[in-house]
Amino acid sequence: MSAPKKYHGITPPLITPLLSRDTLDVAGLERLIEHQISGGVAGLFILGTTGEGPSHSYRLRRELIERTCHFAQGRVPTLVGITDTSFVESVNLARYSAEVGADSVVLAPPYYLPPGQSELIDYINHLVPELPIPLFLYNMPGLTKVSFEPETVLRAMEHPSIIGLKDSSGNMIYVHRMIELLRQRADWTLLVGQEELLADSVLAGSHGGVNGGANVFPRLYVNLYEAANRGDLTLTRELHAKVMQVSGKLYRLGDHASSYIKGIKTALSLLDICDDGMAEPFQRFESKERAKVQAVLTELQPIIG
Amino acid sequence: MSAPKKYHGITPPLITPLLSRDTLDVAGLERLIEHQISGGVAGLFILGTTGEGPSHSYRLRRELIERTCHFAQGRVPTLVGITDTSFVESVNLARYSAEVGADSVVLAPPYYLPPGQSELIDYINHLVPELPIPLFLYNMPGLTKVSFEPETVLRAMEHPSIIGLKDSSGNMIYVHRMIELLRQRADWTLLVGQEELLADSVLAGSHGGVNGGANVFPRLYVNLYEAANRGDLTLTRELHAKVMQVSGKLYRLGDHASSYIKGIKTALSLLDICDDGMAEPFQRFESKERAKVQAVLTELQPIIG
Amino acid sequence: MSAPKKYHGITPPLITPLLSRDTLDVAGLERLIEHQISGGVAGLFILGTTGEGPSHSYRLRRELIERTCHFAQGRVPTLVGITDTSFVESVNLARYSAEVGADSVVLAPPYYLPPGQSELIDYINHLVPELPIPLFLYNMPGLTKVSFEPETVLRAMEHPSIIGLKDSSGNMIYVHRMIELLRQRADWTLLVGQEELLADSVLAGSHGGVNGGANVFPRLYVNLYEAANRGDLTLTRELHAKVMQVSGKLYRLGDHASSYIKGIKTALSLLDICDDGMAEPFQRFESKERAKVQAVLTELQPIIG
Amino acid sequence: MSAPKKYHGITPPLITPLLSRDTLDVAGLERLIEHQISGGVAGLFILGTTGEGPSHSYRLRRELIERTCHFAQGRVPTLVGITDTSFVESVNLARYSAEVGADSVVLAPPYYLPPGQSELIDYINHLVPELPIPLFLYNMPGLTKVSFEPETVLRAMEHPSIIGLKDSSGNMIYVHRMIELLRQRADWTLLVGQEELLADSVLAGSHGGVNGGANVFPRLYVNLYEAANRGDLTLTRELHAKVMQVSGKLYRLGDHASSYIKGIKTALSLLDICDDGMAEPFQRFESKERAKVQAVLTELQPIIG
Repeated sequence: MSAPKKYHGITPPLITPLLSRDTLDVAGLERLIEHQISGGVAGLFILGTTGEGPSHSYRLRRELIERTCHFAQGRVPTLVGITDTSFVESVNLARYSAEVGADSVVLAPPYYLPPGQSELIDYINHLVPELPIPLFLYNMPGLTKVSFEPETVLRAMEHPSIIGLKDSSGNMIYVHRMIELLRQRADWTLLVGQEELLADSVLAGSHGGVNGGANVFPRLYVNLYEAANRGDLTLTRELHAKVMQVSGKLYRLGDHASSYIKGIKTALSLLDICDDGMAEPFQRFESKERAKVQAVLTELQPIIG
Repeated sequence: MSAPKKYHGITPPLITPLLSRDTLDVAGLERLIEHQISGGVAGLFILGTTGEGPSHSYRLRRELIERTCHFAQGRVPTLVGITDTSFVESVNLARYSAEVGADSVVLAPPYYLPPGQSELIDYINHLVPELPIPLFLYNMPGLTKVSFEPETVLRAMEHPSIIGLKDSSGNMIYVHRMIELLRQRADWTLLVGQEELLADSVLAGSHGGVNGGANVFPRLYVNLYEAANRGDLTLTRELHAKVMQVSGKLYRLGDHASSYIKGIKTALSLLDICDDGMAEPFQRFESKERAKVQAVLTELQPIIG
Repeated sequence: MSAPKKYHGITPPLITPLLSRDTLDVAGLERLIEHQISGGVAGLFILGTTGEGPSHSYRLRRELIERTCHFAQGRVPTLVGITDTSFVESVNLARYSAEVGADSVVLAPPYYLPPGQSELIDYINHLVPELPIPLFLYNMPGLTKVSFEPETVLRAMEHPSIIGLKDSSGNMIYVHRMIELLRQRADWTLLVGQEELLADSVLAGSHGGVNGGANVFPRLYVNLYEAANRGDLTLTRELHAKVMQVSGKLYRLGDHASSYIKGIKTALSLLDICDDGMAEPFQRFESKERAKVQAVLTELQPIIG
Repeated sequence: MSAPKKYHGITPPLITPLLSRDTLDVAGLERLIEHQISGGVAGLFILGTTGEGPSHSYRLRRELIERTCHFAQGRVPTLVGITDTSFVESVNLARYSAEVGADSVVLAPPYYLPPGQSELIDYINHLVPELPIPLFLYNMPGLTKVSFEPETVLRAMEHPSIIGLKDSSGNMIYVHRMIELLRQRADWTLLVGQEELLADSVLAGSHGGVNGGANVFPRLYVNLYEAANRGDLTLTRELHAKVMQVSGKLYRLGDHASSYIKGIKTALSLLDICDDGMAEPFQRFESKERAKVQAVLTELQPIIG
C-alpha cells in the first residue's frame, strides 16, 4: 500500500542492557542492535517504557544515547525518549541526542501531577521550539495518567517538526481516531505500541509498531508488519497468532507489571545477546522464573523460526 | 498529650517561588520562609508535590535545597523531597541535602512503571543504606499509582533511619491503619497531607500535618494542630471549619488539578510574599482567576485573622 | 470465509421505544423491527445496555419480550438480556423469554457488588441448568466492574448451552484472546459491541457485531460485516470510515454517558421510526440537542445512503 | 452535644439471614433483630449492600420488609433500601414498605449506566413525589459509579421529605463537606457507613453510623457512638481501636469483596444467631474460612466483652 518511508515498519523499543543498576552492558547493547538490524527493523527507539528510561541516571541515559547512535552507524534511525517531569531536563536530553546523531525524540506528557489538555498544548508549544530534531508524541495514559486527546493532537499537528505519534494506550478505538487525523498530515507517522494490535492497526492504516517482543524476535514482527501492509490477510492472521503467543506466554511470568520487561530481558540473556540486569526499583528474575522463560523459548522458537 | 518532639506539628509543603520556569525567586523564598517560621511551623518540606518537585531541573533543585537550609538557619528542620524515578538521582539529591544541612529526606515510590509491594521493599532496602540522613516515607498513591501497604510499612519500620511517614492518600482509614502501626515504633512520626483530615488525624493520634494551605496561613494550621493535640474539641471544630473554607474556596478556581498549587501561589503573590511563577507544564493563573483569588482572600482574611 | 450461520452478522442492540417512563411505544417498536429486518440484520437483541434493560420495570420487560418475538415472527432470532443482580429474576426472565419464543438469552455478571472469577464460575454453573434456552455471555466490565477473564470463559465453554460471547469491553486485545479460545468450541459465536471495532474484529476472526448505530443505519453495519467477512479490505476501510463518523458525530451530543442512547433514539424519532422517550434516570434530549442530531443526520444520510 | 433524636446513633445494615438462595431464615432474622435491639441500636436498615439487597428476588425483599417491621414492633425505626436500576421497582418497594410499617427508605443512585449530576437531580425530583415515607440518600460511589456531589445534595435538601444521607464513600473529606451542608437543614441526619470512620465523623458532627460490624457486636458500636457524641476522647480512642480490630481481622478472610459479608454472616452463625447462607452470586464460607472466623471470634470476644 504505502511506499516505504522512514519510520514505517517495526521500531523496537529497545530494552537497556545493564550489568548492574547504573552500568551499561556495552557489548550486549552492540549485539542487541545487530540482532535488530539483521531482523529488518526500521529504527531503534531507546529510553522508552520497555527501556526503563525514567529509571536511569542522566549519566547512563547519555551514555546509552551516544553508544546507540555509534553502534547504529546510521543504518537505521535512532529515536530517543526524552519524556521527563522536568521541561529543562527533556530539552537537555534532546540537545544531547541531536549532538551525537539521533534522528528524532519521543515525548510522553510529564507524568507526576497530570496536566489538563490546554496545559498540555501550552507545554508542547513551549517545548517544540527548543528541540533541535523532530518529535514524536507518545501516548501512554496508563502510566502518565493523561492522554493526548484527538483535539490536542490536531493542535500539535500544526508544528511541522512534530512528525508522528506512538500510541501505547492499548485502545484500538483511539488508534482509529488517530488514523482519521492522518488526513490532516500526509507526512505524519502513526505507530502502535501493543503488539497484539499491530495487525489490526496496520490493516486499518497505521504505519507500524513499536513492539517489545521485537527485541527477541525482530523478524516475526517485521514479517507481520509487511504482510498486513500489503493486505495479505491469511499470512497476517498466521503471524498475528504467533505474536499473540509471545505476549500471552512471555510477559506475565512474574507477579508484577515489570514482568513484561523482565521476561524480554531474561529471554535475551538466555539467547546470549545481553545481560538481564534491571534498573531499580526492579530486580532480574530469579532462577524459578528464568526456568519458565527458558521453557517458553523452547516452545516458541520452533514455531517462530 | 505527646510532649513536643522534633517534626511534631505543622510542616508546610513549601511552594517553590519562581520568577520563570527555571529561575528561583530567591527574595521571595526568604520572605516565604520567614512567613512560615513566624507562623510557628515545626519544619519546612521542600520539593514535594506542592513544591512542584519533579518539575524542576536538578540544578534548580540543588539551588532550592541550599538556599532553604541557608535561610532557615537551623531554626526549624528542613525536609527535602528526593522522590525520583531514578534511584541514582534520589541518592544524589539526598547526599547534596545532607551536605548543605538538611535534616531529613522524603521519598514516595518511583512513579513511572509502578512497583509491586515486594519490589518496593527491595527498593527501600537497597536505598536506605545510601542515605546519609533520616528518611520519611511519602504515601501518595493518587500520583505514584502505588501505595505503601501496611505490611510494607511494617517492614520499613525495621530500618531505624526511616523515622516516619507522610500520608497524602486522602484515605482516613489508611491513616488509622498507620496509627495502629505506631505501636511498633514509639519514635516514628506520622504526618498527614490533606488539610481536611488534619483535625481528625491528630485527634486520632497522628503527629501533625503537611498542609498546603499553611503556605498562606501558617498560624491557622498551627493553632488547629495544637487544639487537636491537647483535645480541645470546641476550638478544634471551629478552626477545622476555617480550614475547610480555605480548601473549599481556594483550590479549585481553575479547571485542572494544578489549580491547587496555582491558588496558593497566587495568594502568596497577592500578599507580596513571592512570585506566582509556575514550573512547566503549568502556567500562572491569568487575570480572571487572579481576581477570584483576591476575592477569596478578601473574604477569608477577616475570618482567619 | 465462514459459511453463514445463525447469529453470524449484525444483531443490533435494540433501543426500547418508550412513550413515557413505563409505556412502550408499540407501533414504534414494530416499525423499528421492520427497519432492522429490511436492513439485513442477523438477529434482534433486546434489553441490553442500549435497550436500557436494567431501567425497565419487570412488567415492561415482559411486554417488550413478548411483542418483539411477536413482531419478529421468527424471521430472525430474538436474543433477550437477562442480566440482573438477582439470580431468581434472571431465571424468571429467561423462562418467560422461552415461553414467548425467544431464541436465546444474554447475561452479564451481576453488577452491584462484583464477584471474583471463582464466584463467577460458581454462579454460571448454578444458573445454566435453570435456563431453558441457550445463553450468550456478555462482557461489559465498564458497567459491571468485572470481566469474564479468559480462564473463566474457558470454563464456561464446558457448558454446551452457552453458545457464545458478546464483548463490549472496548478492549481489542481481549477480543484477540477470545478469538484464540474459539479453537476450543467451533460452534461458539463471538460478537463485538463497539462499532469502531467491528471491522478489526471480523477481519481477525469474530462473527459479527452488536452495534448501537445499526438501530439507525442497519444496512451500513451489515455491509461492513459482509465486506470484512469476505476479506475485501478496500470496501471494509471505506465503510469503517463511515461507521467512525456515526460514532464520532452522533454519540456525544450531550454531557453524560447516556448521550449515546439519546443520540440514537433522537435520530430514530427524527426518522419517524419511534418515540425518543427515555427510561429514568434519563430524559429525552431537549430541542437544542435535537437540532444537533438533525444536523448530524442531514450530514450523514447522503454519505451513508 | 446534640439531644437524642430519631435516627441518631447506630443503625446496623442488617445482613439478610438465608437458608438458601431464595429462602429467608425467619427464626434467625428474629434472633438477629433481638440481638440488635438489646444492643441499643437506633434503627434497623435492611436491603442495603451488607444486606445483599440487590441480589434478592422481589418476593424475598417483600417478605424481609414485612417480617422485619413485624419483629421490630416499632421499638426502633425500620429503614428499607429501595435502590434499584428501575424507577418503577423502587417506587413499588417504597409503597410496600410504607404499607407494612417501615419508617423510611434509603436510595443510592441507579447503578447500571451511571447518570450525570443533573440527571441525578431530575431523577430525585421525579422520584420523591412518588414516595409515601421519608427518604435517606445513600452515597456509595464505589458500587454505583456515581457520587451525590455536594451541589446535588444541596438541591436534594430542598425536598423536606429527604431527611438525611448515609455516606459509604469511605472518603472522610466528603463527610466533612456533608457536615458543612448541615447548616442548611438542622433536621437532616448524617450517618456514615465505614466503621473505621465512625469515631472521626461523630467527633466532627455527624449523627451516627450504619456499620456492618454492629450486626455482630452492636453494643461496641453503640458505646463508641455515645462516647464520641459526648466528646469523651479517651474512651472514644479505646473503643475505636477495638472497632479497627473487628474490621482488620474479620472482613478479609476470603479472596473477594464479598468476604466482608461472609465474615459477618459466618460470625453470626457461629454465635447461633442465624444461618450464614448467601445470595447468588456468592456462597457461604467453606470450613477453612469458617475456622478462621472462629479464631477471630475467640480472640475478639474477650476484648470486646
